[in-house]
Amino acid sequence: MIQEAIELTFSTPGRGFMEITATIRDRIRQSGIRTGLCTLFLRHTSASLVIQENADPDVRRDFEMFFGELVPDGHSGFVHVAEGDDDMPAHIRSALLGVHLSIPIAQGQLVLGTWQGIYLWEHRSEPHRRHVFLHVLGER
Amino acid sequence: MIQEAIELTFSTPGRGFMEITATIRDRIRQSGIRTGLCTLFLRHTSASLVIQENADPDVRRDFEMFFGELVPDGHSGFVHVAEGDDDMPAHIRSALLGVHLSIPIAQGQLVLGTWQGIYLWEHRSEPHRRHVFLHVLGER
Amino acid sequence: MIQEAIELTFSTPGRGFMEITATIRDRIRQSGIRTGLCTLFLRHTSASLVIQENADPDVRRDFEMFFGELVPDGHSGFVHVAEGDDDMPAHIRSALLGVHLSIPIAQGQLVLGTWQGIYLWEHRSEPHRRHVFLHVLGER
Repeated sequence: MIQEAIELTFSTPGRGFMEITATIRDRIRQSGIRTGLCTLFLRHTSASLVIQENADPDVRRDFEMFFGELVPDGHSGFVHVAEGDDDMPAHIRSALLGVHLSIPIAQGQLVLGTWQGIYLWEHRSEPHRRHVFLHVLGER
Repeated sequence: MIQEAIELTFSTPGRGFMEITATIRDRIRQSGIRTGLCTLFLRHTSASLVIQENADPDVRRDFEMFFGELVPDGHSGFVHVAEGDDDMPAHIRSALLGVHLSIPIAQGQLVLGTWQGIYLWEHRSEPHRRHVFLHVLGER
Repeated sequence: MIQEAIELTFSTPGRGFMEITATIRDRIRQSGIRTGLCTLFLRHTSASLVIQENADPDVRRDFEMFFGELVPDGHSGFVHVAEGDDDMPAHIRSALLGVHLSIPIAQGQLVLGTWQGIYLWEHRSEPHRRHVFLHVLGER
């Protein structure tokens, strides 16, 4: 049984989905692990890691529209507003959608379904540098 | 330290909760692992894996009612509607509720609480075949 | 590769956030594990484990305000009300926010970001004893 543990950094252009599937797949391939477990952990409280449909871009557009309604920027009830109207909504989206993913590895591949992609979802309006910790455990 | 990695398939009758606790428990027992970690990963973007109350069926009924209000089928703002009124809501429920579970194993058993069951929650109206990947790691 | 598996108990004073980061950090340090994976699993369906901002207490206040609006106590559509107006909302919050966390360990530390704390979020109004299972796997 072997482990790999590294930090990856992504620069987001502001609110929206950034697909990171290819980067993670490459790392798994390089590890040589055939059977095991991949854990991704985002080290922030105003963005998320999610698995979602990787085919039609309208899906991501509808997600943004829906979450803009669900957790409105500038909600009059928020007290924590010093960093902007989008800050508290970003924290809430992050808690609702989560910051960690656990994906098994079989036959040297993540067991993602055909239509599943791994996304870093930036919830803040401004660009940010985001750190994702990758832990892989398994057997070659 | 040993591993097991297999795919399980479930046929859902359409939107609603399907309890899969017994199937997962059986697999853990068969693995012989006494202490370890069980990871469940659903290979789809329009259903979820959730842990919820396993006693009163009204709980699952109230969940359906609530999510029907929270993420309404046929919301006029959705653009991704080619596969039906329930498709985009299914993607959103899937992202909100998640597609993976991590449950430790101790004394040969999942450490679920007394009232916790493992559910495959189908979000699409029509029946579907759903694939759940089970990864178990630990010591006999 | 070694494992540790223990149950921790916390007494909550009723609805609200209880930070448990220091307790978990201490356990990781005592395990002596330098590289590995920490899994936390809450054995209940009416509270959550979440990672959130650990600096400004207004963030937690805004979370309570927002979730009070999102999943209102005493919603007239709920059938499962025998245990009180806050019971079904507690189950829904628990499903939305999750009951398990996976956090890698590197250089003997959880890889939490600077502003990330681990919280047990009690969703019931009354005080409760809550059981969190801690599983750690890795190498010294």
